[in-house]
Amino acid sequence: MELQFLGTSSGTPSRARNVSGLALRARGSKHWYLVDCGEGTQHRILRTNFSPISLRAIFVTHIHGDHCYGLPGLLASAGLLNRTEPLLIAGPPAVERFVRGVIESTGLRLPYAVEFAAVEAGWTVATLPDFRIEAAALSHRVPSFAFAFTEKSIVRRLDTAKLERDGIASGPGWGQLQRGEDIDLPDCRVARSADYLLPGRRQRKVIVAGDNDTPSLLAEQAQDAQLLVHEATYTEDVLQKIGPGPQHSSARATAAFAQEAGLPNLILTHFSPRYQQAGNGPSMADIEAEARAAYRGNLFLASDLQRYALDRHGVLTLLTDT
Amino acid sequence: MELQFLGTSSGTPSRARNVSGLALRARGSKHWYLVDCGEGTQHRILRTNFSPISLRAIFVTHIHGDHCYGLPGLLASAGLLNRTEPLLIAGPPAVERFVRGVIESTGLRLPYAVEFAAVEAGWTVATLPDFRIEAAALSHRVPSFAFAFTEKSIVRRLDTAKLERDGIASGPGWGQLQRGEDIDLPDCRVARSADYLLPGRRQRKVIVAGDNDTPSLLAEQAQDAQLLVHEATYTEDVLQKIGPGPQHSSARATAAFAQEAGLPNLILTHFSPRYQQAGNGPSMADIEAEARAAYRGNLFLASDLQRYALDRHGVLTLLTDT
Repeated sequence: MELQFLGTSSGTPSRARNVSGLALRARGSKHWYLVDCGEGTQHRILRTNFSPISLRAIFVTHIHGDHCYGLPGLLASAGLLNRTEPLLIAGPPAVERFVRGVIESTGLRLPYAVEFAAVEAGWTVATLPDFRIEAAALSHRVPSFAFAFTEKSIVRRLDTAKLERDGIASGPGWGQLQRGEDIDLPDCRVARSADYLLPGRRQRKVIVAGDNDTPSLLAEQAQDAQLLVHEATYTEDVLQKIGPGPQHSSARATAAFAQEAGLPNLILTHFSPRYQQAGNGPSMADIEAEARAAYRGNLFLASDLQRYALDRHGVLTLLTDT
Repeated sequence: MELQFLGTSSGTPSRARNVSGLALRARGSKHWYLVDCGEGTQHRILRTNFSPISLRAIFVTHIHGDHCYGLPGLLASAGLLNRTEPLLIAGPPAVERFVRGVIESTGLRLPYAVEFAAVEAGWTVATLPDFRIEAAALSHRVPSFAFAFTEKSIVRRLDTAKLERDGIASGPGWGQLQRGEDIDLPDCRVARSADYLLPGRRQRKVIVAGDNDTPSLLAEQAQDAQLLVHEATYTEDVLQKIGPGPQHSSARATAAFAQEAGLPNLILTHFSPRYQQAGNGPSMADIEAEARAAYRGNLFLASDLQRYALDRHGVLTLLTDT
């Protein structure tokens, strides 16, 4: 599984960070998915290997502008690229009202269909390629969701020693068995696929969360996940100073949850623009130090255009830094 | 007068060019104006000396997304910067419907007032600082306008030789005379301001046009203008191939109009992304060659973040190139 961050700032873009957007795909798949689409997401996409043509669906965590104001422009540009495949947009119902309203008020004509799915707690979609996707409700000023992406198909290996012991010769039949089909043998026996498939490895699962002041709402989803991507808008001291009104998480709160949930990998994102890369004021190093003090797993702080890979063993690696 | 291009691509952004946006201000003024606000305009503003706080008004030429999809994000970011001054948005009525619709559907709360002005042919506003602004109707698939910015106040110089001949001693009185006030002299004479002001120079006037397939619609406005900023989406051959449907101008058509109108300065912008900076395909050099063949004035092809100055004598200079 591959992830690429298109925006990692909260509220407003900065010179280094755009507002939220995350590209996700199964390695080698022709489809990809987008979680959130802040203004300028299409500009970031121009700097990646992703195309608005092969985008299969967009998941919008919540209706705040820094997570959705890039939708109209991305839809328009996909149209100018002559996209014809339907595009799914899944999110809280306000997202459909927003997008339909803009299409209508600006006379936007698209050469492809836009399909909307209204997301609520427990919403699941299994009809998309590569992943089963589930929504989990979060706690924010407006309805906000996390999307959990679970691999749909695992290629299970054949128990070749057993096949040979049972006198089943290698050939096209082995492929059928591996694909889950039972086969008739020349001696009139039937070989059942289930008898010759080795146990599958664990399905990879990645949770991408929207804005949220209560990470523990993801406790159940996190049980079988290898990676959580979650906001850490502030350090704890800044959050205490601002108060609970904005309903965001601190680095400490997110990291402590990931530690308690036993999550092997954590990527923090959605940083307040007040945190600079370096300098005398609040810096990204403050966010990192706070998170490392509370979490002993594999921790990353996302930057724009960073690409990550989660391998079959659930090991997360940063592929490119910017 | 200073202009800075924030976007110079038509339809979609490219890696080098954003969609339409142009900043304009009177040199030394604390206010500035924006014409068009395509997606990502606020990102470009981050790379300039302009701030969403001191932006006085936004003029939207027409409702197409590449000219207005950056409005919601810019409004939101100005709010996060704690802007309190009202902001005027002037454009065809669809612009107000679009912006109000997004504010409503996404629950955007702003700490300042947004005022809308519905632009139609002949619309004028004289209540803004620095400029009187007039709209002229263009020809496009949807209602589209040009905005003409004319300097409001010209500082007229005093005829000091005449003052001395008439025995009016230098002092605070000279300043009053220059500001247009008559003054009482110690010998009971009255010195009239009008008698001592030298003739004013011509007021500078800049026309910034939206999408338009008929440049000659600007013939009247162009009579006393020093600069026209106008689209040249295609070269003539490409326009002929595409046909008149999109209702854009070729470089040749725009340049020929500027030549006929006697405009001393012309900046072309809004280039189709098919024109590359260099390479084997259609290039910016094709646009330039076609325009130069038809126009013998001071010609520029705009690039993103370029700054231009129009001095008191109507001479246009490129201040920085990118």
